[in-house]
Amino acid sequence: MRADEDRRAAWVYLSRVVLGPCAPLSALIESVGVVEAARAVRECELPEALRGPTVQRREIDCVESDLEAVWRCGGRVVTPDDPEWPAWRMLGFTTLPRPDPDGAAPLVLWVRGPGSLADLTERAVAVVGARCSTGYGDRVTGEIAGDLAARGLTVVSGAAFGIDAMAHRAALAAGGSTVAVLACGVDRAYPAQHERLLAEIAETGLVVSEYPPGTPARKHQFLERNRVIAALSDGVVVIEAGIRSGARNTVKWARRLGRPALATPGPVTSAASVGCHRMIRDEEALLIADAENVIDELGPLRLSVASAPAVEEPVVSGDPGTVLAAMPERVDHLPVELAARTGLQLPAVRAALTTLEFAGLVEEGRSGWRRTPRGRS
Amino acid sequence: MRADEDRRAAWVYLSRVVLGPCAPLSALIESVGVVEAARAVRECELPEALRGPTVQRREIDCVESDLEAVWRCGGRVVTPDDPEWPAWRMLGFTTLPRPDPDGAAPLVLWVRGPGSLADLTERAVAVVGARCSTGYGDRVTGEIAGDLAARGLTVVSGAAFGIDAMAHRAALAAGGSTVAVLACGVDRAYPAQHERLLAEIAETGLVVSEYPPGTPARKHQFLERNRVIAALSDGVVVIEAGIRSGARNTVKWARRLGRPALATPGPVTSAASVGCHRMIRDEEALLIADAENVIDELGPLRLSVASAPAVEEPVVSGDPGTVLAAMPERVDHLPVELAARTGLQLPAVRAALTTLEFAGLVEEGRSGWRRTPRGRS
Repeated sequence: MRADEDRRAAWVYLSRVVLGPCAPLSALIESVGVVEAARAVRECELPEALRGPTVQRREIDCVESDLEAVWRCGGRVVTPDDPEWPAWRMLGFTTLPRPDPDGAAPLVLWVRGPGSLADLTERAVAVVGARCSTGYGDRVTGEIAGDLAARGLTVVSGAAFGIDAMAHRAALAAGGSTVAVLACGVDRAYPAQHERLLAEIAETGLVVSEYPPGTPARKHQFLERNRVIAALSDGVVVIEAGIRSGARNTVKWARRLGRPALATPGPVTSAASVGCHRMIRDEEALLIADAENVIDELGPLRLSVASAPAVEEPVVSGDPGTVLAAMPERVDHLPVELAARTGLQLPAVRAALTTLEFAGLVEEGRSGWRRTPRGRS
Repeated sequence: MRADEDRRAAWVYLSRVVLGPCAPLSALIESVGVVEAARAVRECELPEALRGPTVQRREIDCVESDLEAVWRCGGRVVTPDDPEWPAWRMLGFTTLPRPDPDGAAPLVLWVRGPGSLADLTERAVAVVGARCSTGYGDRVTGEIAGDLAARGLTVVSGAAFGIDAMAHRAALAAGGSTVAVLACGVDRAYPAQHERLLAEIAETGLVVSEYPPGTPARKHQFLERNRVIAALSDGVVVIEAGIRSGARNTVKWARRLGRPALATPGPVTSAASVGCHRMIRDEEALLIADAENVIDELGPLRLSVASAPAVEEPVVSGDPGTVLAAMPERVDHLPVELAARTGLQLPAVRAALTTLEFAGLVEEGRSGWRRTPRGRS
């Protein structure tokens, strides 16, 4: 048990040192283990790439007080060693092109609430959007998030004003599950006006953050937080987004992680829908009009992935097998093209590609999907 | 001049016999000339495929009275022999897959109004949509059609209730040009309530029909009429469409003829936008939110085509040359893929593909664009 505690302390220490994603550190942990990585950081025995991100806080060692702080607010830390760590959700990060210092899974997740993180995100959809939402956007969010929650999908969002808050509230009202991912510590309320909403979410769902207790919400952390929202979801739905909306960043992460990015249209006369229309026009997001459309796009993703552990020989039967067989080596393919070739529906092709991507057999390049070296053998 | 009159009489006679598109007859005219084709029809010296479509009315010969009827309402007939025949607009029909009895250019167009048909459709956009439009749809139609007309584009529509009528009215109000394509003779008003609107359109623009004077509006003629709307336009914009809208048929023709198909979103809570959302979702139409978006999608189409007469060696410099060079032989390509390969913007790629299609160098198949035999040489 001593070893377990050492590992936990190492995760918590490193979470405090880097305060967010750090791809070189994740690589070091992958290579030497978390305890040895923590020792190396503490003693500054590090490759060049890791000195900058760790030098500032490597001497802060407040593991005990961090764990105490999260306990005090009724929370806990979830590390990759814990059974409730949603490991499969983090697989998307392993296929991101390098170097990308932000393209890393969170080291740990600090959570507040009774549910298991892995269970709650088993089937989850992110519903995000404009802080300055309109009555139309609020109504559509209520319908879509409520319908998704009523069908047993967890609604993931960022607890911001506007669409985010509406999405959480609709899920709660439907008696469903909801997860709020914060850009500050889980012992804090951001925005402060949502302290009660966050407390309600923590009663049945989870409030989640990759930042240790006490961390204030800093600007760049909202962008890092968006990647956690995308990672914990089967797809991202944007309902209302202005021309410079943060939702576009969440959509970018969804696409990078192989999740469908979806957007709801609205009146072309509404400034709050301009961002959604632009994302649909630029083929960054697919148009969805209701919860039914959302579920169609998610496809049978979770089931396939759950039955295909990454370490074993990947399952390439069924739709993924059909899609892979339709992809000649070293040629890029778009989902619509593969749908035409295989006779499968587009959502099925998308789901199959994501399954194949998790299995490390295909990857998305600039002009479409192609086989990885592993997928060619 | 006698020969000219014989040819005109032959066109008018055949227009009355087939009352709409007839691909086998167009093929016969192409092969033996219009005068000989008219003689063959009249005397029933015909291949099997042409007997059915011509037997019923081949003995009706009312060329004189048809011409008189159209003169009486201030109109005329425009045949492929006339300088105002928009020949290049009909090129799309020549690349349609056979057999398709409806996939033929109109034999003639009956028109009412002062403008030249070729000039008025030099740069034209179809704006069509639901008969049961909402206040939102009417407003958006007014803005988009008005802006397009103010920028010198002719607004083509079908003079129906709702979006169509709004599009014509907005073009007139902007002091721009508008063309109404009818499913009945140009001496008739359909719907009857739009008699005055049609008279206004005929004062500065054109009322157009492929059916001879006196022809009532029959159901199947609306679908045939939609292909003329698509053919006379650089692109088709749908503003509001219910779940079973005729606009989807016009969009189908736009796609078959190589024109961009565009649709305006609206509130997902509005039944009048369901058809638009579905077309965008199913990748049958691109989302556009304003006149600027429409013009972006049309691209420099007309200019390129005008400078590349179909009979001469086609121009494949500029963007079309770049796009063609990026297409390996016998492989299908999607516009997004070609955009990624060439570094061109998507609208430029689409415009280039249409130019190449008109030049007979590429064609659209089930899974993308490919070189024709001519484009491979």
